[in-house]
Amino acid sequence: MSPISAPAKVLVVAGTHGNERNAPWLLEHWRRHPEALPRHGLDLELVIGNPAAHARNRRYLERDLNRCFAAELLADVSQDGADLQRARELVASHGPEAEDPCLVALDLHSTTSAMGNALVIYGRRPADLALAAGIQGLLGLPIYLHEADAAQTGFLVERWPCGLVIEVGPVPQGVIQAQICRQTQLGVEAALAVLAAAQRGTLRLPAELVVHRHLGSLDLPRHPDGTPKACLHPALQHRDWQPLHPGDPVFADPGGTTLSFEPPPGLEGQPVWPVFVNEAAYGEKGIALSLTRRECWPVSAAWSAALSAVASKLAQRGTPL
Amino acid sequence: MSPISAPAKVLVVAGTHGNERNAPWLLEHWRRHPEALPRHGLDLELVIGNPAAHARNRRYLERDLNRCFAAELLADVSQDGADLQRARELVASHGPEAEDPCLVALDLHSTTSAMGNALVIYGRRPADLALAAGIQGLLGLPIYLHEADAAQTGFLVERWPCGLVIEVGPVPQGVIQAQICRQTQLGVEAALAVLAAAQRGTLRLPAELVVHRHLGSLDLPRHPDGTPKACLHPALQHRDWQPLHPGDPVFADPGGTTLSFEPPPGLEGQPVWPVFVNEAAYGEKGIALSLTRRECWPVSAAWSAALSAVASKLAQRGTPL
Repeated sequence: MSPISAPAKVLVVAGTHGNERNAPWLLEHWRRHPEALPRHGLDLELVIGNPAAHARNRRYLERDLNRCFAAELLADVSQDGADLQRARELVASHGPEAEDPCLVALDLHSTTSAMGNALVIYGRRPADLALAAGIQGLLGLPIYLHEADAAQTGFLVERWPCGLVIEVGPVPQGVIQAQICRQTQLGVEAALAVLAAAQRGTLRLPAELVVHRHLGSLDLPRHPDGTPKACLHPALQHRDWQPLHPGDPVFADPGGTTLSFEPPPGLEGQPVWPVFVNEAAYGEKGIALSLTRRECWPVSAAWSAALSAVASKLAQRGTPL
Repeated sequence: MSPISAPAKVLVVAGTHGNERNAPWLLEHWRRHPEALPRHGLDLELVIGNPAAHARNRRYLERDLNRCFAAELLADVSQDGADLQRARELVASHGPEAEDPCLVALDLHSTTSAMGNALVIYGRRPADLALAAGIQGLLGLPIYLHEADAAQTGFLVERWPCGLVIEVGPVPQGVIQAQICRQTQLGVEAALAVLAAAQRGTLRLPAELVVHRHLGSLDLPRHPDGTPKACLHPALQHRDWQPLHPGDPVFADPGGTTLSFEPPPGLEGQPVWPVFVNEAAYGEKGIALSLTRRECWPVSAAWSAALSAVASKLAQRGTPL
């Protein structure tokens, strides 16, 4: 096992969006009852991502906190605002260079889309891929690989050497549901089990990783004044992760007229897999749904090595080093 | 038929709560395409209830608009605020005493609870009971009779001589769903058909009205600091209108401990029918669910007469008076 250079923690963030109530409630429960979350000896930092937005039950105050973590934006002193300040504070207090550093970030979200219990990773960092593969091996969770999307950048977990989002739905904003909490708990438990196995050198990943790779997003058809001309077709509502074929219904206007799916250039004749279908918070971003391609990738030994390298630097409480 | 004393309208309000998006979207569609809503010759006033809250996708700005319509509050010049001002404006512009009066108010809401397509009436005004009975006769919609609740008063429709709420769910706040719009449209169409029949003297009501009469509300168990100690039990989620018996699970803590339903004093040993189960906006009101008693009432001829008296004062477009 690699020598531990500094005792580092796993950052568990809930309430990065203030109107996603399930994970923050669970996190408060873990604070009151530490035994409710098996830690496998790992040292955790439990944090409410955006306490000011959480107190107001709003996604954010001025700017989506989970789009504030681009390095240039964090460093740009001409940019200000409560959410961006909070992003800087999180990096300063719990980032990999902090006095009391965290090296892995688990960011817990919920969605109004029927994503089930799902993982989101950003780009193809080997340690992230290993962590996701390990969780998928334990629980079978689907993975949304978000990449190559210039309109959506600056996600929290990207500022830590390893990290992913656990995304659970459908649940309305502002609502706590027992099943959503249970799924979130299972996701976090699996992530910690994988990190602990990587630290102990006992990590065994599946041979294949199934990812849903981001291709692009569709907005609703809109009137010239910006208001929606059509809404999601009822046949597509709650059909996240189900293949959508050319000609399938995708939008409907209030009069019942159906608009069919026309694959974007380069994807003619091929199915896509929608995710984040009708997520409440994405209307303002012009996203009615995102489109992905389902792909099976062989799991690389380099991914495990990358995750083990990170995990070896995590503090191990109560275990001889 | 009674002589028409002044040409009055039917007020159709959408977006009384700014984060309930379905009815306002439908209303904009009716404005663009008047033929999309059969009016039976009735003159409608289509209004966005709280445009400022709607623009911000928030339920309200400072005070729940749908609790602002108590006569004393409207008249209390020491009370102020944007939402209360909007309530006064709605009454001044479209109230029964306005220059261009409305005599019936249909207030269109959505909920995160699994209420389906439902009606809410406030108290036992005969004309409201007739309108609700007529809609129930056409569509079979369940009716929540809200009364005797000192903690929740000042509902919009109470300031008009006749009116009710059409309440559709489950749908998250901030989300438009085709099925929710369709249910809303059906509810409004049925209400207008009943009003037109009452105006023409052809109203035929069913022999019985099934109501779910408000008994009281339950809050979540809470820690001393006010945060929830438990959430709704998963067995009760989405079980609006289904009988709840003594001993049935009602809340669950994050560790999985179940709290069972204990009927309040006076209701020992009897089932109740929950409504507004886990409605997102009611957390702040201390309501995790409301309890009702299902009752079958004989429909009274006096109700029809009361509705006909109101309907006879409505303008009838394109029909000889």
